[in-house]
Amino acid sequence: MAKFMDVHHNMMGITDQQLQEAHAADLAIQAEEGVAFEHAWADPTDGVVYCLSEAPDAEAVMRIHQRAGHPADEIHEVPLTV
Amino acid sequence: MAKFMDVHHNMMGITDQQLQEAHAADLAIQAEEGVAFEHAWADPTDGVVYCLSEAPDAEAVMRIHQRAGHPADEIHEVPLTV
Repeated sequence: MAKFMDVHHNMMGITDQQLQEAHAADLAIQAEEGVAFEHAWADPTDGVVYCLSEAPDAEAVMRIHQRAGHPADEIHEVPLTV
Repeated sequence: MAKFMDVHHNMMGITDQQLQEAHAADLAIQAEEGVAFEHAWADPTDGVVYCLSEAPDAEAVMRIHQRAGHPADEIHEVPLTV
């Protein structure tokens, strides 16, 4: 397992409800790929969403986001944490 | 107080020790601006570092990072969290 930060752009105007629903859609299927989404942070003004997860690899995270209907634009393994 | 995610680029090869030292340099002076850095995550391969903080405004976060010797390239207020 490794830690990942993925980033969604062009999310201008995202609401709290939309963020909660998107996160719930990930949680509903994440176990199928061994992914655990931990947190998400959204900036509705600049339209950026950051998601932190633990997963076997980046592709597993991307597949869950894709299947949940919100593919990520970037993903970075973040082995260093403080 | 609000929550912020700031991003540092061009950090390729950053080590765990460098991340810890950079975070400690922020913590040492953050109170002067009312900032509280909570977490940081680094991808040494792509050279990206994400820092999560609580602060009165984005400028306060930027000033602490600047004075600690590692100005951020982006900062986003993230009012929505899950």
